[in-house]
Amino acid sequence: MSAIDERRHERKFVRTFFTTPTAEQGEDDSAKKLRSAIGLRGMQAPDVWVPDNEDATAPNMRDEGARNIAEVVAEGGAEFPGEIHPRVVWHRDDPSARYDGFQHMLEIADPENGAIEHIDGFVIPEVGDVDDWKKADEFFTIVENEYGLEEGSLAMSVIIESGSAELAMGKLRDEMGKADNNLQRLFLLVDGEVDYTKDQRAITPTGGLPEWKELRHNTARAASAAGLIAVDGPFDDIRDVAGYHERMTANNAMGMLGIWSLTPTQVVEANKGPLPPADGYWVIDADGREVELTSEDGVEVYEGDRIELESQGDTYELAVGGDELHLEEDELRAELLDLLDYVPSMDDIVDSMEEFEAAKEAGKGAIAMTQSGTVRIDGVEVAISSDRMWDEATYQAMMTPVKLFKDVYENRPDQHDDLADLYSVAVVERAMEVGI
Amino acid sequence: MSAIDERRHERKFVRTFFTTPTAEQGEDDSAKKLRSAIGLRGMQAPDVWVPDNEDATAPNMRDEGARNIAEVVAEGGAEFPGEIHPRVVWHRDDPSARYDGFQHMLEIADPENGAIEHIDGFVIPEVGDVDDWKKADEFFTIVENEYGLEEGSLAMSVIIESGSAELAMGKLRDEMGKADNNLQRLFLLVDGEVDYTKDQRAITPTGGLPEWKELRHNTARAASAAGLIAVDGPFDDIRDVAGYHERMTANNAMGMLGIWSLTPTQVVEANKGPLPPADGYWVIDADGREVELTSEDGVEVYEGDRIELESQGDTYELAVGGDELHLEEDELRAELLDLLDYVPSMDDIVDSMEEFEAAKEAGKGAIAMTQSGTVRIDGVEVAISSDRMWDEATYQAMMTPVKLFKDVYENRPDQHDDLADLYSVAVVERAMEVGI
Amino acid sequence: MSAIDERRHERKFVRTFFTTPTAEQGEDDSAKKLRSAIGLRGMQAPDVWVPDNEDATAPNMRDEGARNIAEVVAEGGAEFPGEIHPRVVWHRDDPSARYDGFQHMLEIADPENGAIEHIDGFVIPEVGDVDDWKKADEFFTIVENEYGLEEGSLAMSVIIESGSAELAMGKLRDEMGKADNNLQRLFLLVDGEVDYTKDQRAITPTGGLPEWKELRHNTARAASAAGLIAVDGPFDDIRDVAGYHERMTANNAMGMLGIWSLTPTQVVEANKGPLPPADGYWVIDADGREVELTSEDGVEVYEGDRIELESQGDTYELAVGGDELHLEEDELRAELLDLLDYVPSMDDIVDSMEEFEAAKEAGKGAIAMTQSGTVRIDGVEVAISSDRMWDEATYQAMMTPVKLFKDVYENRPDQHDDLADLYSVAVVERAMEVGI
Repeated sequence: MSAIDERRHERKFVRTFFTTPTAEQGEDDSAKKLRSAIGLRGMQAPDVWVPDNEDATAPNMRDEGARNIAEVVAEGGAEFPGEIHPRVVWHRDDPSARYDGFQHMLEIADPENGAIEHIDGFVIPEVGDVDDWKKADEFFTIVENEYGLEEGSLAMSVIIESGSAELAMGKLRDEMGKADNNLQRLFLLVDGEVDYTKDQRAITPTGGLPEWKELRHNTARAASAAGLIAVDGPFDDIRDVAGYHERMTANNAMGMLGIWSLTPTQVVEANKGPLPPADGYWVIDADGREVELTSEDGVEVYEGDRIELESQGDTYELAVGGDELHLEEDELRAELLDLLDYVPSMDDIVDSMEEFEAAKEAGKGAIAMTQSGTVRIDGVEVAISSDRMWDEATYQAMMTPVKLFKDVYENRPDQHDDLADLYSVAVVERAMEVGI
Repeated sequence: MSAIDERRHERKFVRTFFTTPTAEQGEDDSAKKLRSAIGLRGMQAPDVWVPDNEDATAPNMRDEGARNIAEVVAEGGAEFPGEIHPRVVWHRDDPSARYDGFQHMLEIADPENGAIEHIDGFVIPEVGDVDDWKKADEFFTIVENEYGLEEGSLAMSVIIESGSAELAMGKLRDEMGKADNNLQRLFLLVDGEVDYTKDQRAITPTGGLPEWKELRHNTARAASAAGLIAVDGPFDDIRDVAGYHERMTANNAMGMLGIWSLTPTQVVEANKGPLPPADGYWVIDADGREVELTSEDGVEVYEGDRIELESQGDTYELAVGGDELHLEEDELRAELLDLLDYVPSMDDIVDSMEEFEAAKEAGKGAIAMTQSGTVRIDGVEVAISSDRMWDEATYQAMMTPVKLFKDVYENRPDQHDDLADLYSVAVVERAMEVGI
Repeated sequence: MSAIDERRHERKFVRTFFTTPTAEQGEDDSAKKLRSAIGLRGMQAPDVWVPDNEDATAPNMRDEGARNIAEVVAEGGAEFPGEIHPRVVWHRDDPSARYDGFQHMLEIADPENGAIEHIDGFVIPEVGDVDDWKKADEFFTIVENEYGLEEGSLAMSVIIESGSAELAMGKLRDEMGKADNNLQRLFLLVDGEVDYTKDQRAITPTGGLPEWKELRHNTARAASAAGLIAVDGPFDDIRDVAGYHERMTANNAMGMLGIWSLTPTQVVEANKGPLPPADGYWVIDADGREVELTSEDGVEVYEGDRIELESQGDTYELAVGGDELHLEEDELRAELLDLLDYVPSMDDIVDSMEEFEAAKEAGKGAIAMTQSGTVRIDGVEVAISSDRMWDEATYQAMMTPVKLFKDVYENRPDQHDDLADLYSVAVVERAMEVGI
């Protein structure tokens, strides 16, 4: 028996959650977008594809949408490289929405429609407290029973977009596994910040979404405690690629490695987002702004105007954001070390893993990992070197991106070429072998 | 039957929670401040007035304070435009404080004193875990029963100023509605950060209050989940109007739309705080500081020194905080768009609401809202234009300030003149009609 | 009977939690580090010393480590000035680790080994949900029963390093005191951020630890609600003393006054960290960076380049980070007051306490505390003065550092000399007498 807090599904990681309208009026083929999405492959194809029979589809098109899902998945589901989890309608305060969602699940899962063998589960939006989750779970059980599927075989993912759903996440460990439910079917906890903002009645001057950092922490924590996977909500400004990456970086630091994608371009970004970079690089804290250094012939160069460095005989003048410091060489090195940080590549991470494993075999519990480099600011070059102690816990914590990589590699053969392009074949092989 | 997470009281919103000492020694009339406060009208009058028979009143004056409340509310309560919720003494660790509070409730609510028909409820400070809340609730029930009032008719608000009370807020949905309590009477969840700081034994170098952002999030979330209203604690530095507004802006972004007010001047600020501005304006991120642009003949002007812009033939040099960028016109536009944001007026919001409603009627699920303007920096003018996609969820989330406005308008006729002065009669009328 | 949320152990505060490996291979004496640590005195000795038979000690050395603990504590425990809480192995997902931990507890606590009278409790790492805590508690009870110790006399501290343990902290008030456990023995809640990062599967680009601010808040809150003491995890970068202090300052503002120490040098820093400074000083917000002013002959001098001030006849030009303001003297004073803050010394705090106590005796509920000074920027001197209102709640909240000081003074006679050196004998005496 596995513990509840080990991730319980085939996919241990989900990077991307991509939604597609299920039926659009005025098109020759109302299922056009579904047909296009199910053809995605490689980095453009999400880990979880969500034919969206809720918000993305007009209310009067949703019965047709359910039929479209069944038809399109029956045709193309076998070849689709990710998992398929349609979203149906639901609302904690509206029994008729819940009944509609149930009917749509029955339609999509009907074996006569030929889609069910490619359907991995359903996404339930607008859930409330945990008793509301149980109502949805009961419909999954009935669907499974009606169609002769194994109980619990359909995964259930929920959108967290109310305060009551946020609180429900704290109760999952006490509720999953009880005799009268099949909540072990839970898979993704997905934040829905626009509706959450409405539910909380929050107001911002510009109408922009609040950060909802506590919600994201609580979602990632619940995922960790109940063996589920945390996914962040949609990022509206589709053109703002840098902003999307900043959001992912913040999410990843909370243990939320997945994010919603609204377009195939966003899917590509989000599939790559939590993976380590192909090349390592240095960053410097330029008076509160993190700036990436440019590597030139092995020297890391700061090209901005916020940090100035001048050699004055034996000493140096370092100015950061207007504040001048007069420093000896040792002091300068220490000051720069405080400002600098190194972002390791996949190759660097595998190196460190192997180095630690060798040390462990040799009977050492902790070793120092050294990172060295030469930094150039205003033409002045300084050699720097920083140590970090690694012990078993550090090793385990640094293993997460490698585990993610392996999960991707094993479950997404369609991305092997992209990964080899990104990292080189040699790095991919080393990553697959480390930590076994 | 309404769901538990719809706000359950007559007032769906409370902007202001204004406390007044109930009895002061050495005055000719110990109830002088009560008499003054009950005369407040318009923007100076709070949504909830709290004759404070706890911390604001010396311990040896509190029996007199309870009599003063009854007397003053009997006289002037009928004309007071807000709700009246006296605060009585209470402490989770002190049964004698709890008994005193009960006695004061009996005194204030005694129909013979003539105040009870204008008393909307009581505020209970220093509560602990939810079982402590139930002790207070039981006293409310006894008071109601003794005086022939309907059970549950007196609202109960609590001050959250202990870790145990913060945890209790997560249990409300499981406890409200049980047969042995009347906790549905709950109304306001009010943070009390000074005592909370003591209870947490927190220390800051300057003695200033910690931010307690998580507490505020948890309070707003509990209010959302249990159909209550969240209110932030007192802002001590009475002269710092800008600081008070910053706090409100941060609170509003969490769904905490109410705040404590210590003076009528603070009441005015807090009554206006969460309402949209009368005139829209642009803000720019000037190297980490948000600066409002000045509107001059339809051009939005940045007048600070932190951003510099120079036209150099076909290209531009943009400097933000010392970092220089050389940009084509298109790049400049994109760069500025990232820095700029628009704060819509009430009129702008109603425009957008109406535009979306029309689109919805025409069968569209999502439309782009455009915001255009001309920005001038160092004499260089640049036309910019940004789009934002609106769907049903955006529309619903943007409705909050309008709903707040309607709640104010319906419940506070004494503020109609102030609102008409602020927004013009035409805008008020449009706001009252949108979204019906 | 004391309420659950009053701190329940002899030590009401714990500043320092210092771990030491219990057995190292290849040394003449495998217990060398234990023998060295138990000899620490004064500021170098922690409030809680943790012979670490888990992560700090290699797995194959832990049986020997348990014997070493018993031997070394039997010899030197009577003279050790802090409490002694060995850490044993444990894991929520591994029954054999739990059984090993139990065996090590039996070994260390065996009265025949002579250590038990100096052992205050045990630290249990890697706990999961509260039912897992109960398994550990049961082993404590069995150990106590086997060796004729009073039930509940051995304190139990836990390391919070999983999402399930974080959630368990919210249940303590409901579980402590139940007939079938002795969880009242709980003492420290210690965050373990490296393993927590692994459990949350969080990724940061540089491999640095995330802030985990919500975890720390939740730990401090649980400690407050259940009468326990919150301690932060290890700070890896041993050379970064400034960073260690910044972390402590952030922790203290959440009510987390204790922190892990990896070296005697870190113990010294952490023992002094939460105590008020010996000398008060002013700080100024220099465009987002907090800078300490230098006191010269009673004038507080800003020596940086981020703020510039020039007198221009009757008016002043003040530039902060490039933004220029032209101000009358009164405006300048107000502007500077917004930027300045005073950090009171222990002496200042005692002064304010006494002033408020005198006012209270004279029948006043609130008084203004004034802080005055002269500030010099670019040679221009400005006299400033700020008021802060103190009432009973302010007084109680400001009492925390004084209570901490008293707890230290009463429980750590070995630090009396250091405290007298730091504060002078007169200040120590006044601090011990205030608030009685």
